[in-house]
Amino acid sequence: MKYDIAIIGGGPAGYTAAERAAAGGLKTVIFEKKAIGGVCLNEGCIPTKTLLYSAKLLDHAKSAAKYGISVPDGISFNLEKIIDRKDKVVKKLTGGVKMTVQSYGAELIEKEAVIAGESDGLIQILAGGGIYEVTYLLVCTGSDTVVPPIKGLSEVDYWTSKEALEMTVLPKSLAIIGGGVIGMEFASFFNSMGVKVSVIEMMPEILGAMDKETSAMLRTEYQKRGVDFQLNSKVTEVSPSGVTIEKAGKSVLIEAEKILVSAGRKANLSQVGLDKLNVELARNGVKVDEHMLTSHPHVYACGDITGHSMLAHTAIRESEVA
Amino acid sequence: MKYDIAIIGGGPAGYTAAERAAAGGLKTVIFEKKAIGGVCLNEGCIPTKTLLYSAKLLDHAKSAAKYGISVPDGISFNLEKIIDRKDKVVKKLTGGVKMTVQSYGAELIEKEAVIAGESDGLIQILAGGGIYEVTYLLVCTGSDTVVPPIKGLSEVDYWTSKEALEMTVLPKSLAIIGGGVIGMEFASFFNSMGVKVSVIEMMPEILGAMDKETSAMLRTEYQKRGVDFQLNSKVTEVSPSGVTIEKAGKSVLIEAEKILVSAGRKANLSQVGLDKLNVELARNGVKVDEHMLTSHPHVYACGDITGHSMLAHTAIRESEVA
Repeated sequence: MKYDIAIIGGGPAGYTAAERAAAGGLKTVIFEKKAIGGVCLNEGCIPTKTLLYSAKLLDHAKSAAKYGISVPDGISFNLEKIIDRKDKVVKKLTGGVKMTVQSYGAELIEKEAVIAGESDGLIQILAGGGIYEVTYLLVCTGSDTVVPPIKGLSEVDYWTSKEALEMTVLPKSLAIIGGGVIGMEFASFFNSMGVKVSVIEMMPEILGAMDKETSAMLRTEYQKRGVDFQLNSKVTEVSPSGVTIEKAGKSVLIEAEKILVSAGRKANLSQVGLDKLNVELARNGVKVDEHMLTSHPHVYACGDITGHSMLAHTAIRESEVA
Repeated sequence: MKYDIAIIGGGPAGYTAAERAAAGGLKTVIFEKKAIGGVCLNEGCIPTKTLLYSAKLLDHAKSAAKYGISVPDGISFNLEKIIDRKDKVVKKLTGGVKMTVQSYGAELIEKEAVIAGESDGLIQILAGGGIYEVTYLLVCTGSDTVVPPIKGLSEVDYWTSKEALEMTVLPKSLAIIGGGVIGMEFASFFNSMGVKVSVIEMMPEILGAMDKETSAMLRTEYQKRGVDFQLNSKVTEVSPSGVTIEKAGKSVLIEAEKILVSAGRKANLSQVGLDKLNVELARNGVKVDEHMLTSHPHVYACGDITGHSMLAHTAIRESEVA
């Protein structure tokens, strides 16, 4: 089968590009091995925000009296219902993206795609037993959670953000390794749900590159609500009792029933086969120019795989540029 | 008493300008006849948002079940507490502005100021029995509610936004004349508080110059919550029973216990005495150039009085420019 353009990866970068390419009259095929919508829609922003909205309503109900609103005693939450609503929102949105992509005329193949090579100016892609020959290729395979090599980690049943979103039972206590945006969103949610949360951050402040003053204000706010912060702390070991950190030269055990690793994400390069096309890599991902063109004249890349900001908005804009 | 600069009006434009001028080393005096902070702080955005926050918490508590949060039956509100909190917020913020203005070294005179004239290159201002002689003058007297000449209006005890914010008892029903931003904020608040609200708008859509699609979405949302909209409707008369409108050639009575007039605001020009300095006026206010200079080489004007967007942010930026 021949196409003008193939897009590997159905996240925000991929599906936006597929819509644009198909709308522009190109014969377009898009491959997605897991779930259209990418991390943002399936295991990132959208489900997180859905959970956070329920948590906000719970917090609001609890604090309403201060604002002149009387809510009788006995506020509670139903975790099953909260999770059920999250799943429905994700399903509705992924369904919408799927329909939109197809309504533009792009063909959606829900299989893993691998680059096989190129000949006669066409790039060959294998997916689900079929061979696809394309003139142009756009790679948007996104990013994966970074799991740092921590002693003892492989022996405990830890969470990454993906598993945290799939939980159905709340732990009594949770140690979050990494105080970035994702870590803080989960800290907020689980704290509202009554879980004892500790955030462990290697740097002197949470939220990485964000404005220090704002980050400190946010941290103080969470501390008031009961979140424990361990800054300037290096994780040395994890065990079923919790996380051992080294802080100011001392070793401290942060007890926790569950551990959430949110130490960042890295470009997903390993399996797609970019080496078959000799595409040049940069430090954090695929090297691209300002038009998102890689070192190969017919191969573009965008989204998290370029190692840029790893946010859906960046991905969408990059795909528009591409 | 001699000053480098006098500022008439202590709203966002005036107090920002006073801070800047004093910080820049000018001997500065600022006059405010009512309450420092202006309409925004005392009878506009701030108290409105404070009330709306309470209304939001009430709405959230009522709709929480959908999001997996169980709130027992019997949610109620305490209007007195809601109003009390609003008053405290306003008091705290006006106190803060007052302190800030004075901490920069500007002299604050809480009296009405009137321009008396000019001689020897100095402008004379009268306030509280004193005479102030200044080299430069910045006029930021803001705007007043427009009360259109509606038949019967002077015989009923109607509200403008100011009185609506001062209410202590909720009416059973409220007819809002004017579906602009201010009208819609009050529609939202009183609807949440259980008041039957009708919004009467002359134009085919609410929210004036805003994007039509967004305005229509917002209107549909409010309709779902029970707000009644009368678009393309001209008010012909008001009476103790409500508002009579003319819509598609027919006369209809919109019953309402209370009437809120929110038909816009107009520059406050009448009493300050700009005629004494022969300052030129434009259609909606004082005529100024891009540096906020009026036709008089030593008189500047900014904020609502220029008839521009009549928003506090515009006023603040204009005062920075001036």
